Amino acid sequence: MNQDERYMRTAIEMAQATIGQTSPNPSVGAVVVKDGEVVGMGAHLKAGHAHAEVHALDMAGRDAEGATIYVTLEPCSHHGRTPPCADRIVEAGIKRAVVATLDPNPQVAGRGIKKLREAGIEVVTDVLKEEADNLNEVFYHFISTKIPYVTLKSAMTLDGKIATATGESKWITGEEARADVHKDRHKHDAILVGVNTVIKDQPRLTTRLPDGGKNPIRIVLDTHLRTPIETPLIQDPEAPTWIITGNQVDQVKKEAYNAYSHVEVITMTSPTIAIEDVMHLLGEKGVTSLYVEGGATVNDAFVRAGMVQQMITYIAPKVIGGHDAPTPIGGQGIHSLEEAMSLKIEEVIHLGNDIKIVSKPNQ
Amino acid sequence: MNQDERYMRTAIEMAQATIGQTSPNPSVGAVVVKDGEVVGMGAHLKAGHAHAEVHALDMAGRDAEGATIYVTLEPCSHHGRTPPCADRIVEAGIKRAVVATLDPNPQVAGRGIKKLREAGIEVVTDVLKEEADNLNEVFYHFISTKIPYVTLKSAMTLDGKIATATGESKWITGEEARADVHKDRHKHDAILVGVNTVIKDQPRLTTRLPDGGKNPIRIVLDTHLRTPIETPLIQDPEAPTWIITGNQVDQVKKEAYNAYSHVEVITMTSPTIAIEDVMHLLGEKGVTSLYVEGGATVNDAFVRAGMVQQMITYIAPKVIGGHDAPTPIGGQGIHSLEEAMSLKIEEVIHLGNDIKIVSKPNQ
Repeated sequence: MNQDERYMRTAIEMAQATIGQTSPNPSVGAVVVKDGEVVGMGAHLKAGHAHAEVHALDMAGRDAEGATIYVTLEPCSHHGRTPPCADRIVEAGIKRAVVATLDPNPQVAGRGIKKLREAGIEVVTDVLKEEADNLNEVFYHFISTKIPYVTLKSAMTLDGKIATATGESKWITGEEARADVHKDRHKHDAILVGVNTVIKDQPRLTTRLPDGGKNPIRIVLDTHLRTPIETPLIQDPEAPTWIITGNQVDQVKKEAYNAYSHVEVITMTSPTIAIEDVMHLLGEKGVTSLYVEGGATVNDAFVRAGMVQQMITYIAPKVIGGHDAPTPIGGQGIHSLEEAMSLKIEEVIHLGNDIKIVSKPNQ
Repeated sequence: MNQDERYMRTAIEMAQATIGQTSPNPSVGAVVVKDGEVVGMGAHLKAGHAHAEVHALDMAGRDAEGATIYVTLEPCSHHGRTPPCADRIVEAGIKRAVVATLDPNPQVAGRGIKKLREAGIEVVTDVLKEEADNLNEVFYHFISTKIPYVTLKSAMTLDGKIATATGESKWITGEEARADVHKDRHKHDAILVGVNTVIKDQPRLTTRLPDGGKNPIRIVLDTHLRTPIETPLIQDPEAPTWIITGNQVDQVKKEAYNAYSHVEVITMTSPTIAIEDVMHLLGEKGVTSLYVEGGATVNDAFVRAGMVQQMITYIAPKVIGGHDAPTPIGGQGIHSLEEAMSLKIEEVIHLGNDIKIVSKPNQ
């Protein structure tokens, strides 16, 4: 690894630490180096707050003059909620800028770099580009599609079951895997389940980590508005709860939920709920990432809609057996293997006695 | 790793290379070292042929005098098909013997070592004992239970399916995983399927590796003798085929199979086939290890009988979906998670795009 890669690695690691907290903005890290010494470091922490470059340049102060800045994403060139970072870099007197990857928005990509070059700054790009791109997969997906990045999570036994034939599913996996689920909840803007899961399991769907963590918005697909008022999603206001229904639900029934200010009942325009419609709605409401913890039926709807960007599959070394025990994806299924959705395994991680498989659909 | 462990590791690696070809004997390796140099190496290659110690001492010749012998299993002290190795070691003038693990047969365990010590040889035991024990799990299981060691193999998708709802299962996994199945067939004395698999898939059930490999005995569970005469298991005599039926099968029907000398129709004493009975029969016939490639129903019978020593699960990153698509273990299943068969994952191996999970039931 050369010097440029070494400092960029640090910037990427800083950005990684903020995944989940910058939505709808990307995670970005920056390092300022002068005469072989780090003089400034920063990361973007929260939408509306300072960008990574600004934090790093603030820390560097006058040492920024003649220094090199490493930044994981092309500095912005436009006025958003904050002034353009490219201008700030020029003003600070930076001599050289190393950029991992360009802005994913084709309308502005390259503009920040052009601005720097025009000001006489030497610019190097594509340093650890792949790592930097992975950092912001969710952001890039949302920018280009306007719908959330979907992670479909399931936990199954070695014989492919997510519950017993009688529906018992607590707990298939062990403690470590369950803690990992909370880490992944923290990284998503919203979490989605079907109403049957709400009725059966009475989940809280919050992020419960030793040191807190961000609660995602809790979304229930509930065509006929059957979510019980006494359920934790309604009774506890820890996070917003959005209940999505079809358009055949009685108005009086909806009013029962009005007393809870964190609860919103959202009525779709058709009697049944189409995943595509829900996804566009969530995109409009600024949800960039969705963690689907559905049962076999909800999962099947996402797979059939072709709206899964990542599958996370926990496998517990247990055998439940049973022709009728549910599996991660239900529905009709396909008839010929040629039609199977094909994925690539990205990671296999051991968590206690269980394993976690992260995979992504082949394009 | 000290010197003793280093030489024992070599002996274990030599033994590992022979797994599958020594049945019903264990796999054993031996190394003879004198003045810090290896002077002899050997492994047991085939039942009835020389033991590992004999090969190693033959190679060492007169250099064995005053040398140390490393052997993965306690040298035998009794006359079997070959004379006792303990005597041979004494005669060769060995000064020190390092033994990984004792003979698993409680009736003779310790006798070989006693014989060596009585002859004035210094004996060290338990060097890399765990690795040595793992080497011969099948042998130890068979010695202590008189029934075969069962490996239950399945190949499923990321959503727990072994076939589409219409039964298509060729191929769930990729080439690398399929080649690995052939390696594992080679390591087993026999392979077992249900008659439905024979009718549907017309398998050959042979070991097809680039450099050959040993074909296991092919066993079909076929209560009503429905195995088609034209199927490869009957038409090709590459390996013995045993068809196991209930006792309500017509004698005339059985005679049709007489023309094939590699085929044996075995009639159980009851109308239906009990796994326990089959396992005892196989044990009596000298089958020490069984590779079960059944569908959901056959697999379920083995799990319910509690007769699974190892599960091998290939996972292909595909999604088939379907509430009715078959899973690795069918049948009734359990009702409460407490009753689930609990295993420990021993290994996770990447094979092309697929992964292989090796797990063993907790005691």
